[in-house]
Amino acid sequence: MNFKKIYDEYKSYFEIELKKSTDTFIGTEENLISAMKYSLLAGGKRFRPVLMLMVSDVLGVNRQTILPFAIALEYIHTYSLIHDDLPSMDNDDLRRGKPTNHVVYGEDMAILAGDALLNKAYEIVFRNVGSVYSINASRILSTFAGMNGMVGGQAYDIKNTSYPQTIETLQKIHENKTGKLITASVVIPSCFAGDEHFLELKEYGEKLGLLFQITDDLLDFTSSTEEMGKNVNKDFNANKLTYVTLLGEKKALEFAETTLNDALIAIKNIKNNEVLVELAKYVINRKN
Amino acid sequence: MNFKKIYDEYKSYFEIELKKSTDTFIGTEENLISAMKYSLLAGGKRFRPVLMLMVSDVLGVNRQTILPFAIALEYIHTYSLIHDDLPSMDNDDLRRGKPTNHVVYGEDMAILAGDALLNKAYEIVFRNVGSVYSINASRILSTFAGMNGMVGGQAYDIKNTSYPQTIETLQKIHENKTGKLITASVVIPSCFAGDEHFLELKEYGEKLGLLFQITDDLLDFTSSTEEMGKNVNKDFNANKLTYVTLLGEKKALEFAETTLNDALIAIKNIKNNEVLVELAKYVINRKN
Repeated sequence: MNFKKIYDEYKSYFEIELKKSTDTFIGTEENLISAMKYSLLAGGKRFRPVLMLMVSDVLGVNRQTILPFAIALEYIHTYSLIHDDLPSMDNDDLRRGKPTNHVVYGEDMAILAGDALLNKAYEIVFRNVGSVYSINASRILSTFAGMNGMVGGQAYDIKNTSYPQTIETLQKIHENKTGKLITASVVIPSCFAGDEHFLELKEYGEKLGLLFQITDDLLDFTSSTEEMGKNVNKDFNANKLTYVTLLGEKKALEFAETTLNDALIAIKNIKNNEVLVELAKYVINRKN
Repeated sequence: MNFKKIYDEYKSYFEIELKKSTDTFIGTEENLISAMKYSLLAGGKRFRPVLMLMVSDVLGVNRQTILPFAIALEYIHTYSLIHDDLPSMDNDDLRRGKPTNHVVYGEDMAILAGDALLNKAYEIVFRNVGSVYSINASRILSTFAGMNGMVGGQAYDIKNTSYPQTIETLQKIHENKTGKLITASVVIPSCFAGDEHFLELKEYGEKLGLLFQITDDLLDFTSSTEEMGKNVNKDFNANKLTYVTLLGEKKALEFAETTLNDALIAIKNIKNNEVLVELAKYVINRKN
């Protein structure tokens, strides 16, 4: 299996659909549209939608059914990056090899572009909701994106110095901040397959999210700004709580291996799971 | 009819339900919960939910059906105020007689509190969606809140100096920024009444939104900071595009009268419309 090729095929398919979805951005302030498209169409790994489409294919869920959710999820992920990069948040000026949204459009327009993407994500879902399946999927999406999911994790992250600097605090941040949207990508397709393998996929999603974060911290430590398309060593230099600052590089690598193993055990009884096995290995071996 | 008393009864009913809705804010970062509740429960006129409940009663829509939408709408309105008050937006430090969210919780937490309220609004809707009626109502809510509604209006507002300083520009800003959520409050109940009087109510909502904005501009010019609970004369002093700076006080007052009249004409064929007539008059006569 040439997994890289398979990943890129999924990604290309999604990129085309994502681009199409922005064709409906009309009838409003031009700078707002421009700011929204700038971050949405800036490339990136498209990890969450690719994951969602792969799980859908494994479970035999129709692509047209799942696509609005994959697009909505990428809108939500993108809004969170725009807001995360703001001067009062992480204050980052580089993302995916390009200046961040507020550097180009100003802080005020960047806040609004994020807000507009979040509203639009739900608008897309509402335009495609109807079945009990889709309503369940929508509830998961909004819950995992909000205060008890991604936003909650962001809040823990900015307040993390108020908590003990332990692995438990770090887990709490990332099982929400990174983990919940990755888990949503995996369980939403299950909603459309009558909750088939729901719990196993949830476990896989959680472990994959954790793995994603550990490797992110490792890459921040070992990689270059050019390779990553964003400023690196920033977390390490800021003495921020990361898996590398907390465990050291060697133990962080070992933790990544254990987590990969846990992810693979979770899906061992799912038929045609090869692509999901390869995806987890891809996460641990990724270079950016 | 003692309209003030009726208004306050609706408001008290809503305040209790709004407060109840925040009891489910658990299991996440305490500062985030605190920041969300701070702005949600800071009082205010509750104009949009009161309006929505009044229209529901006129059309005979069940209160329990409409309540999740009224709550979601107030969450959306509140998130927009938090983001609007940020230093990079309007930079306001006073709202409803209290320090603004970012003054108390910091800019980063204020951004996240706004994001969390927006996600939560849609989560509430998804937990109560099911019928075709509710799906239509949800589509209207997300569309009117987003890039082609309120957020679009905010974008026009921050870019307004790029446009000709005319009444058309001003209308475009406010028919979106203020008007769309007020119109949503009026047409969403109609969705649950088989679209009864949809177009008439839409027209009423649009005129009421316009009236609300003209009177807001007049109050900013004539009222005191104590009466308004927010800084006044700011727009006027900043030479911002408002109905008063553009038309002068006398013509702005006349425009308010004409707009009130248009609103009343729109609903003249709706049975039991008395409360909506009084509400429009209340808007033009309000002191804060």
